[in-house]
Amino acid sequence: MTNLKLISEYKSFDGKLGFYYHPSSTCHSAMRFAVYQPPQAVAKPLPVLYFLSGLTCTEENFMAKAGAQRYAAEYGLILVAPDTSPRNTGITGEDDEWDFGTGAGFYVDATAEPWRSHYQMYSYIVQELPALIAANFPIQSEKQGIFGHSMGGHGALVCALRNPHLFKSVSAFAPIVAPMGCPWGQKAFSRYLGNNQESWRSYDASELVQQKKYHNSILIDQGTSDKFLAEQLLTDVFAQACTAVKQPLNLRYQTGYDHSYYFIASFIEDHIRHHVIAFEKI
Amino acid sequence: MTNLKLISEYKSFDGKLGFYYHPSSTCHSAMRFAVYQPPQAVAKPLPVLYFLSGLTCTEENFMAKAGAQRYAAEYGLILVAPDTSPRNTGITGEDDEWDFGTGAGFYVDATAEPWRSHYQMYSYIVQELPALIAANFPIQSEKQGIFGHSMGGHGALVCALRNPHLFKSVSAFAPIVAPMGCPWGQKAFSRYLGNNQESWRSYDASELVQQKKYHNSILIDQGTSDKFLAEQLLTDVFAQACTAVKQPLNLRYQTGYDHSYYFIASFIEDHIRHHVIAFEKI
Repeated sequence: MTNLKLISEYKSFDGKLGFYYHPSSTCHSAMRFAVYQPPQAVAKPLPVLYFLSGLTCTEENFMAKAGAQRYAAEYGLILVAPDTSPRNTGITGEDDEWDFGTGAGFYVDATAEPWRSHYQMYSYIVQELPALIAANFPIQSEKQGIFGHSMGGHGALVCALRNPHLFKSVSAFAPIVAPMGCPWGQKAFSRYLGNNQESWRSYDASELVQQKKYHNSILIDQGTSDKFLAEQLLTDVFAQACTAVKQPLNLRYQTGYDHSYYFIASFIEDHIRHHVIAFEKI
Repeated sequence: MTNLKLISEYKSFDGKLGFYYHPSSTCHSAMRFAVYQPPQAVAKPLPVLYFLSGLTCTEENFMAKAGAQRYAAEYGLILVAPDTSPRNTGITGEDDEWDFGTGAGFYVDATAEPWRSHYQMYSYIVQELPALIAANFPIQSEKQGIFGHSMGGHGALVCALRNPHLFKSVSAFAPIVAPMGCPWGQKAFSRYLGNNQESWRSYDASELVQQKKYHNSILIDQGTSDKFLAEQLLTDVFAQACTAVKQPLNLRYQTGYDHSYYFIASFIEDHIRHHVIAFEKI
């Protein structure tokens, strides 16, 4: 494992959960991620499922709270959860706001100063990280899927829509589906990408799906009691875009659920099954 | 719900997870706890299972990390997770040490100054809390069980061994089974209870089981890679005590597991089943 350093390791559901860091050539900083290898991984290569987390999260939240390892062990999947941004880059102001900078990389390649030197999360997720995972863990590279929560749901949709040959399946919990139209997205995009909104389109799932459909049905769970639904998530914008281009979408409004990991845990099994079914067809 | 205040509520596995606080007449301070009501609770009273957490934990850790709600919803159990001590009592030094005072009540009724005015966790767990739960939630009072982790495993064993008519079943993850013989226990007991070790015996599971057997088999899971095993947990002391009095004990040494919630989550289903089976016999 050249350049890959194990920080800590836990046995979990008879498999192995490891927290790692490595010097990222894409983000020009140390990056962290977590990998869960189910017990089957000692015997053979397995499909891999990337989970992108939401604002303020690290590589730990998903592994600690979603309850996903139980199903990864049942179905034989490797789980990978990267951090949500570079950290300690030295960029002035990186830690000043909870919804921008550290913990809020928004899965874009920043083009604006001062962020462009480190905030290259899109390329990190679609290039450097999958290569690193393939080189160091027993994965089936033709069976990779991606999912995420909130900002990470946005990231998962964007990464899959733009890289369907890499990510064969995609799903999301309470994703930001139309970042160009919501305060979180507008704040992040204007500062990471500059004010030319044309450049924003390639990071907006509702725009992307209209340019090119995804080859598989997309699963989205959205709680009806999610306090961010009306202003930030704009789920209907994506639903309408999918309808317009006949993109298969399994959008489930879950009555009474909010934006928390308690919501994610309640439906994590369905999401893992969604990806497993997609992998079985490959 | 007189005197019981809801802090926050989350839908979880089609049930309801609430965080509450109330003025405790036992601890003379505000106390917090969490209750998970599975979907069946809207229709009928259900068995209840108390989980006592370990050092530094609050009422939240178990609900966020153990993955128990999924099984509580499957089997129809109410889960209750109290905090691990009073907080903000004003006692000098209460926040100074991670393994004593705040977050470290050790489930004893303190008799020594200055702790005795607030640190009455044993009576809180076996009297005030069950009464409060029975008055405010749809429970079957004849079907109550208790389990816990580490310091909370100690608490669960002590509470069950001393109150078999209240707690019909008991289990523990990596419990402190012989607190009189380990540094954590000696530190806590000497300061909460004073130096007369005779008074310590009623809070030591390995002593208690020799005084009176428990009516049901006790389930304990203990990771072999738990860094606290040799010095603090002393699992074998309890195993030998059980053997000496023919107490049924299902002690499972789990190879490679540590002291974390990743360990708890891996075996939580087995523990919930252990209690469900006991309740079915009532």
